[in-house]
Amino acid sequence: MFPRPQIDSASEVPLYRQLYIQLKDWIESGRLSSGERLPSTRGMAGLLGLNRATVSAAYSLLEAEELIQGHVGRGSFVIGDAGTGRPGLDWDQVLDGPERLPAPLTHASEAAISFATSSPCADLFPLEEFRAACGEALAGPRAAAILQLGSPSGYPPLREYLLARGAQDGTLHPQDEILITNGCQQGLDLVGRVLLRPGDVVLVEDPIYPGVKHSMARTGARLVGIPVGPNGAGPDVLGRALVREKPRLVVITPNFHNPTGTTLPADAREAILERTREAGAVLVENDSYGELRYQGEALPPLKQLDRSGSTVLLRSFSKVAFPGLRVGWITAPSALIALLTEAKQLVDLHTDHLSQAVLLQFAESGRLAEHQARVLAAGADCLAAALESCERCLPAGTRFTRPRGGMNLWVRLPAPLDSLDLLSRAEREGVTYLPGRYFEVARREPGGLRLSFAGLPPEKIRRGVAVLGKVFSSELERLGAPRRAEPAPAMV
Amino acid sequence: MFPRPQIDSASEVPLYRQLYIQLKDWIESGRLSSGERLPSTRGMAGLLGLNRATVSAAYSLLEAEELIQGHVGRGSFVIGDAGTGRPGLDWDQVLDGPERLPAPLTHASEAAISFATSSPCADLFPLEEFRAACGEALAGPRAAAILQLGSPSGYPPLREYLLARGAQDGTLHPQDEILITNGCQQGLDLVGRVLLRPGDVVLVEDPIYPGVKHSMARTGARLVGIPVGPNGAGPDVLGRALVREKPRLVVITPNFHNPTGTTLPADAREAILERTREAGAVLVENDSYGELRYQGEALPPLKQLDRSGSTVLLRSFSKVAFPGLRVGWITAPSALIALLTEAKQLVDLHTDHLSQAVLLQFAESGRLAEHQARVLAAGADCLAAALESCERCLPAGTRFTRPRGGMNLWVRLPAPLDSLDLLSRAEREGVTYLPGRYFEVARREPGGLRLSFAGLPPEKIRRGVAVLGKVFSSELERLGAPRRAEPAPAMV
Repeated sequence: MFPRPQIDSASEVPLYRQLYIQLKDWIESGRLSSGERLPSTRGMAGLLGLNRATVSAAYSLLEAEELIQGHVGRGSFVIGDAGTGRPGLDWDQVLDGPERLPAPLTHASEAAISFATSSPCADLFPLEEFRAACGEALAGPRAAAILQLGSPSGYPPLREYLLARGAQDGTLHPQDEILITNGCQQGLDLVGRVLLRPGDVVLVEDPIYPGVKHSMARTGARLVGIPVGPNGAGPDVLGRALVREKPRLVVITPNFHNPTGTTLPADAREAILERTREAGAVLVENDSYGELRYQGEALPPLKQLDRSGSTVLLRSFSKVAFPGLRVGWITAPSALIALLTEAKQLVDLHTDHLSQAVLLQFAESGRLAEHQARVLAAGADCLAAALESCERCLPAGTRFTRPRGGMNLWVRLPAPLDSLDLLSRAEREGVTYLPGRYFEVARREPGGLRLSFAGLPPEKIRRGVAVLGKVFSSELERLGAPRRAEPAPAMV
Repeated sequence: MFPRPQIDSASEVPLYRQLYIQLKDWIESGRLSSGERLPSTRGMAGLLGLNRATVSAAYSLLEAEELIQGHVGRGSFVIGDAGTGRPGLDWDQVLDGPERLPAPLTHASEAAISFATSSPCADLFPLEEFRAACGEALAGPRAAAILQLGSPSGYPPLREYLLARGAQDGTLHPQDEILITNGCQQGLDLVGRVLLRPGDVVLVEDPIYPGVKHSMARTGARLVGIPVGPNGAGPDVLGRALVREKPRLVVITPNFHNPTGTTLPADAREAILERTREAGAVLVENDSYGELRYQGEALPPLKQLDRSGSTVLLRSFSKVAFPGLRVGWITAPSALIALLTEAKQLVDLHTDHLSQAVLLQFAESGRLAEHQARVLAAGADCLAAALESCERCLPAGTRFTRPRGGMNLWVRLPAPLDSLDLLSRAEREGVTYLPGRYFEVARREPGGLRLSFAGLPPEKIRRGVAVLGKVFSSELERLGAPRRAEPAPAMV
């Protein structure tokens, strides 16, 4: 236990100085030893009934005298000869091997309006309903089984539910099995681990979600990008790449592709299946967004159309329900699922039971369907606001996709605008987004950027896009580019 | 939707036959298409108000005529030309590369008394208390943040709690950081991924939990086993192996080692640290069981003793609380944590938020401490029952460890008994365990077996060990081995 400093509020010595003197004394006398952690400023303030600023002032003095050292997010530690008395492990040398990621995948920004995160609006979360589903799941006869160690395949009642659902929507073929994963990202990771060897080729869309790119690249595979047009990856370009590159895997996001928001038309789906099958490659269908369709008719999943058993379908509850709960699933031929299940067991034994059970209860009680209806209604408004503002506010020469669902749209600014260069200016105006650079495989698109619209209320979308429009337009003006009066043409 | 068969309970045609005829007609007429899934027998029985056996009988007829095909656990599917009309992907060829695991890691057995699983007794789970913690976690102001996408480092309030706990128990040094993982198993996996390259050497205890062995081996590393004696891995043997093998990693379970139950004494801890540091290797301290001490004083974690920054500590809530909730954490120097966090993000974005939040609430409300007290009291009884029965019932010449905590003890049967050969006989008598073969690295110990005692009530432990004693003794007799009257000596 950390000793409690004595503070005399009647003394003439200022409170922060009393605290400083006492801590300094304890450090110098060895009562606090090297490496020991001080309580957080909040904790110490609470403990002593002081203002937090008072504690901060005392800590700052100690830090200035190099008696303690602050580490962001971890608190302050007493400095001493800890770890210096003996030669420690040289982590720089130990960690020389692994390659670092080029940039953070999620962009944590304090901007007032963030188009940077492809996740739903937290205001939509039905907290009462969710709590009720939790209570019900844990009140049932299965409660103890939920808390107990489980099977690497997943929580059996949820797996049963997903099998029935797959049989009903035609994505579960007779030779197929299901493995429950920690969301789609783990599905990708497991598939990459089991199927890829260094030097293998993987075809991916370009631009692509960095989670796909880095997860595949980490296995030592070589990524080849298939350019995404207004209707997703074109089957002809893909077909030629299949012949030329002989990939082992093809990863496709057919619905509301991240980052572009594009969707593969039905005939392209058939064509891609046919060509992948001919090439003997495995097709990974990343369907994180498929259920978030705000307009038009649903198109059949590749997995449903595929009778050859070449398709591995990745789905998840994250986007349509709660991304903080990491539950997804892989539907694939049972020979592959057996290997994926072995890998899953080594990776983390099994997916968390509590979330599996609660999501099952949320679904079986009809709450998921109700929630989804609300999410779809809200998403439609967000999408409409995003498209309308892009059309109205972005400078002439800008192109953008017109998704009919999902969470993202893709903007291509006119040359010579560079979305990465402009990001800091936008952030100074309180708006952020992810520049195209994050998503590129090989194709450079300096003007590309992703707008994630589904996590914001429509009026924030309008305000945010208006700010971006001004930033981009003023830069164009500064560069002396001709200002055109006509509205921005859509990419599709 | 599956069409609803018409059943006439007044008809003279037996119910199962009515169902059979109708389904057969639908399949042959194409109303049910190839690959379609029939409702489960339970589902169909419920739908039609029939007995489940009636439905099974109808399905069996259809199966006998090869009109449908049953797949265990997935239901029955209409057979047709699905997947045979066109040449499908040859999964045997595709999956030729990856190596299969030699045997299942968890042993799902229907034996009445199972010593096979190293997990707590579900009867101890405080379901009411757990439900209350859930409700509280979700009623607070953080509820929406729990459901929203989070940080790869972990749920911030839980991380804060763990940092404070680490600072208090001396396992968090100034240069350290914490990453929250899906239990210790994911900690191992991430450490292996980030630090190991094919050909690297890893020292592990022999015998060892297969989850450690396979997780490390999968990276392409070469495993070298350090024999486990009554006091765990000996520092001298380990020291020589460090010099000879120049390993990159040393994985040690200092407390109540799985599978042997042994604990490293304090001086051995210091010696191992010193030698690992001299060799420049990274020491991974797998401390899944440390909190489950039923007797004696706790020994300092290696991580606490280590001032050189060479130790990576893996801990988890699984063993002391609920293994179905997959939440653990890694404490390590921040340079390593940064890389592990990047890997974590690619692997599954972040650990499930719901379980993190509920476990935090369970801990902060004092319920975890209360639960732990009950677990320790129960564990002490289980341990006593296990030791006492081993002493009383196992045949002369048997040796076994005397753990003072944890979930497992290790039995070494006298030659020529083979624990794997005897398993099926024990299972016929309703008792199961895991033979030593599952745990071996290089050292053959045909007589070795693991008894996991913590998941069973004491009277079941006594009955189970008595059965094993009879099976083993009668085999010794059959082999004509001399029967000795003295009790089995303990291994320590």
